[in-house]
Amino acid sequence: MDLTGSSIVAGQVRKTAGAEFYSYNPSNGERLQPAFKEAGADLVDLAVTAAERDFVAFRQLPHSRRALFLEAVAEQLRVIEDQLVGRANAETGLPQARLQGELTRSVNQLLMFADFIRDGAFLQTQVTPALPDRQPLSRPDLRRTEVPIGPVAVFGASNFPLAFSVAGGDTAAAFAAGCPVIVKGHPAHPGTCELVGRAIVAALEQCGLPRGIFSLLQGGSHQLGAELVTHPLLRAVAFTGSYAGGKALFDIAAQRLEPIPVFAEMGSVNPVFLLPQALIEGSDSLASGYAESVTLGVGQFCTNPGLLFAPEGPELERFVSAVVEHLGNLGAGVMLHAGIKQNYHSALETLTVQPGVERLSVSAASSVAGGCLATPALLRTTGERFLANPLIAEEVFGPAAVIVACSSRQQQLQCAERLRGQLTATVHAAAAEAAPCQELFSILERKAGRLIYNGFPTGVEVCPAMIHGGPFPATTDSRTTSVGTEAIRRFLRPVCWQNAPPEILPPELR
Amino acid sequence: MDLTGSSIVAGQVRKTAGAEFYSYNPSNGERLQPAFKEAGADLVDLAVTAAERDFVAFRQLPHSRRALFLEAVAEQLRVIEDQLVGRANAETGLPQARLQGELTRSVNQLLMFADFIRDGAFLQTQVTPALPDRQPLSRPDLRRTEVPIGPVAVFGASNFPLAFSVAGGDTAAAFAAGCPVIVKGHPAHPGTCELVGRAIVAALEQCGLPRGIFSLLQGGSHQLGAELVTHPLLRAVAFTGSYAGGKALFDIAAQRLEPIPVFAEMGSVNPVFLLPQALIEGSDSLASGYAESVTLGVGQFCTNPGLLFAPEGPELERFVSAVVEHLGNLGAGVMLHAGIKQNYHSALETLTVQPGVERLSVSAASSVAGGCLATPALLRTTGERFLANPLIAEEVFGPAAVIVACSSRQQQLQCAERLRGQLTATVHAAAAEAAPCQELFSILERKAGRLIYNGFPTGVEVCPAMIHGGPFPATTDSRTTSVGTEAIRRFLRPVCWQNAPPEILPPELR
Repeated sequence: MDLTGSSIVAGQVRKTAGAEFYSYNPSNGERLQPAFKEAGADLVDLAVTAAERDFVAFRQLPHSRRALFLEAVAEQLRVIEDQLVGRANAETGLPQARLQGELTRSVNQLLMFADFIRDGAFLQTQVTPALPDRQPLSRPDLRRTEVPIGPVAVFGASNFPLAFSVAGGDTAAAFAAGCPVIVKGHPAHPGTCELVGRAIVAALEQCGLPRGIFSLLQGGSHQLGAELVTHPLLRAVAFTGSYAGGKALFDIAAQRLEPIPVFAEMGSVNPVFLLPQALIEGSDSLASGYAESVTLGVGQFCTNPGLLFAPEGPELERFVSAVVEHLGNLGAGVMLHAGIKQNYHSALETLTVQPGVERLSVSAASSVAGGCLATPALLRTTGERFLANPLIAEEVFGPAAVIVACSSRQQQLQCAERLRGQLTATVHAAAAEAAPCQELFSILERKAGRLIYNGFPTGVEVCPAMIHGGPFPATTDSRTTSVGTEAIRRFLRPVCWQNAPPEILPPELR
Repeated sequence: MDLTGSSIVAGQVRKTAGAEFYSYNPSNGERLQPAFKEAGADLVDLAVTAAERDFVAFRQLPHSRRALFLEAVAEQLRVIEDQLVGRANAETGLPQARLQGELTRSVNQLLMFADFIRDGAFLQTQVTPALPDRQPLSRPDLRRTEVPIGPVAVFGASNFPLAFSVAGGDTAAAFAAGCPVIVKGHPAHPGTCELVGRAIVAALEQCGLPRGIFSLLQGGSHQLGAELVTHPLLRAVAFTGSYAGGKALFDIAAQRLEPIPVFAEMGSVNPVFLLPQALIEGSDSLASGYAESVTLGVGQFCTNPGLLFAPEGPELERFVSAVVEHLGNLGAGVMLHAGIKQNYHSALETLTVQPGVERLSVSAASSVAGGCLATPALLRTTGERFLANPLIAEEVFGPAAVIVACSSRQQQLQCAERLRGQLTATVHAAAAEAAPCQELFSILERKAGRLIYNGFPTGVEVCPAMIHGGPFPATTDSRTTSVGTEAIRRFLRPVCWQNAPPEILPPELR
């Protein structure tokens, strides 16, 4: 399949006259063909208008047919697997094996939602029966179900070109809910986006579904994003990416004549707390586990554990030396694109010059400059400095971490209190440390969407119990998750039917 | 119990030096004693800080103790029933019988939430068990539950001085969730607010709970509301009232450094559609039912059916004449306060001067001017005019309705398409009209939170299946309800525990 460099509007490739842009191979700087065209306001309007038009038919499909469509998308992704993994590898520098795993995850997400919606139980229907003889007033028959909210815009992330992109979790959840999707493709992997977009179109054709329920708009300008989010027929936005990007879309959406929800997952520093006995008992395995979690995917995970709080003392010194050594062995890696690499370096620079922050020397085997290669970094400071300087709690997107040496248990608790909203928070505790562990978690429970005991936060299981979300600024809506079956709730709203006879009620309420 | 005219901060009466204000009896214009003092920024900060402090203990209480507290509030309201109904009658002009019914409803709401939370099932826990041997990666044990979000501000409505005010549905839902509540009392019924606030304090004392979980701030200034909504420790806002008020709070909350959700129920016009055969078969009972619904509570219900769409012709003329006659018999009523009466008259004036809108003469027995007495009003226009003029779809808060004569079934559908978000939408259909009824509902399902078949929208049952909500501008979050057990969801957020042993997990996940 040859790439066209075009957007896809209502299931059709649309050549336009917009500005050209290219993707680049971060491993060698090579400019990749073809040129892509930036979509403009005309395509936004065509896409959202078609989505609204075909929403009428799409939302009324039986759930079993929506499930078949999700399965068809999964099947079409498998058909193009080799080309897709190859292109994604060229555009992101992520290893083939990782991309193959990510494709499997994307396919499994689609299949999970297909299973989840098939029997209609996800609608959580509720019936309050009539009480015609109740005094002083009779009670009507009331039946509650859920309906899809309408056209949804999905902004994919650069760091998961498959699982959080064109056919990623947000798109799967929105389709499962019955909502048309307009994807704003990530400009760092437009070829990957086009391949996946065309796989979705193939699935639409295979299932005989209206084409307006899917569009892919290519481009990198803020204007394109703003045009999409302000379109009057759009009903919600899902976003995975930076705080700056997510917050900008949130603000635009809140200022519309009719505000719409923005479900932005904007990452966090994912604090890890070591309790004293856990540090003694687990020292080296803790150090290797932590170093691996910090460098997984060259640190480009929303759940990267960028802050660690531990009691000061000789055990911590041993732990720090071991982390430095492991980071050195894990070595440098290719980041997703030049912009991310630059941001990583400047964020590291900012951290390093904070008073009382020390950068430890990590002798990574391939710590050469140039290209998108990035070396792991370890910094350390004290609890006192951390409490005095909110900048130390800022996310550094990349393979870096700050170790905070706490002078007392009380100070460790104070550091926990000081944290802003997080996707995850982790405590390592020995068996005998249940009480201090609970005390920490009682603080962290207010800060994070996922609480991890004696583990590391990278690795987000796609399953019913998962919450990938958390209080602001980790996300813009702490009541939601962007991973797992509950991610569908973002795109549904409840409706209550009063006294309607069976022939009028939707099937699930009869 | 003598009224003090003060706010209640963290369970204690606080005398302050703020500006004085009074409530007035709308039936006779009498100024009611005592003077009330406007709360200032100092009290806001004391109240929210105390709420945050005592949230720590409140959220960790067993659900059974929160349930006992809700029951104690209900009991304390019954203790002061006579004084409360008397004061509310003086401050609102609502009849004693209506207020007695509203008190029963408020008590039942508290008891409903007590029952709902007692066994913990409301947390909708979910367990995804570990798969230690899964390849290529093991799966951790994941357990999801819900936690309260933190201090909540409740802005009560003038039209339900008990059921949507200090101890109304929002407060009951927030307490049930485990959230402290800071009520901004409605300035039209501050005495009622104080009585109810002191009943809540008595319940706190009876249950030995920390006092910071409840405050009542008295006052009417926009500044007081803004101080409360911008307080950094506040986590959510619940509001029932006008579009202008709700949207202003929504905007303030969205512009915070850390945005917080505002759940504003802002009312709507609650369209009613009559299909031709239903109009023929039901003419007079439809007319009396509609007139009663329009004038219930002097039209001061969020679910007041202010727009009716019916096919033009002799049946409609008979229906209109019958509605006029019934409205005349139902007569004038005392509105809640002078401001509402003025707004009613000016909104009616605006409607009446729209081209093609005709005001029908309603000879209400007591259509005298003066005081807060308001006369029912019926206007009519055509579908063509309605489609051309969005102003006709604006809510008139009071006993008024606009009848829209549609020239065709197509035009009736077009009118439905044109509607903005509504709390309710109603269709009257004869048994043989299932197909056109479904066609209408397939449009209205996108517009409203509750769909009513052959009934009228006034009367919002408090029960598990109820949805009192709807798309913007009916509310600011279409995924929620402010009535019924599901109202608790606004104040909860999900948390996922990974690999935690039983002694660390919250009780409901063990």
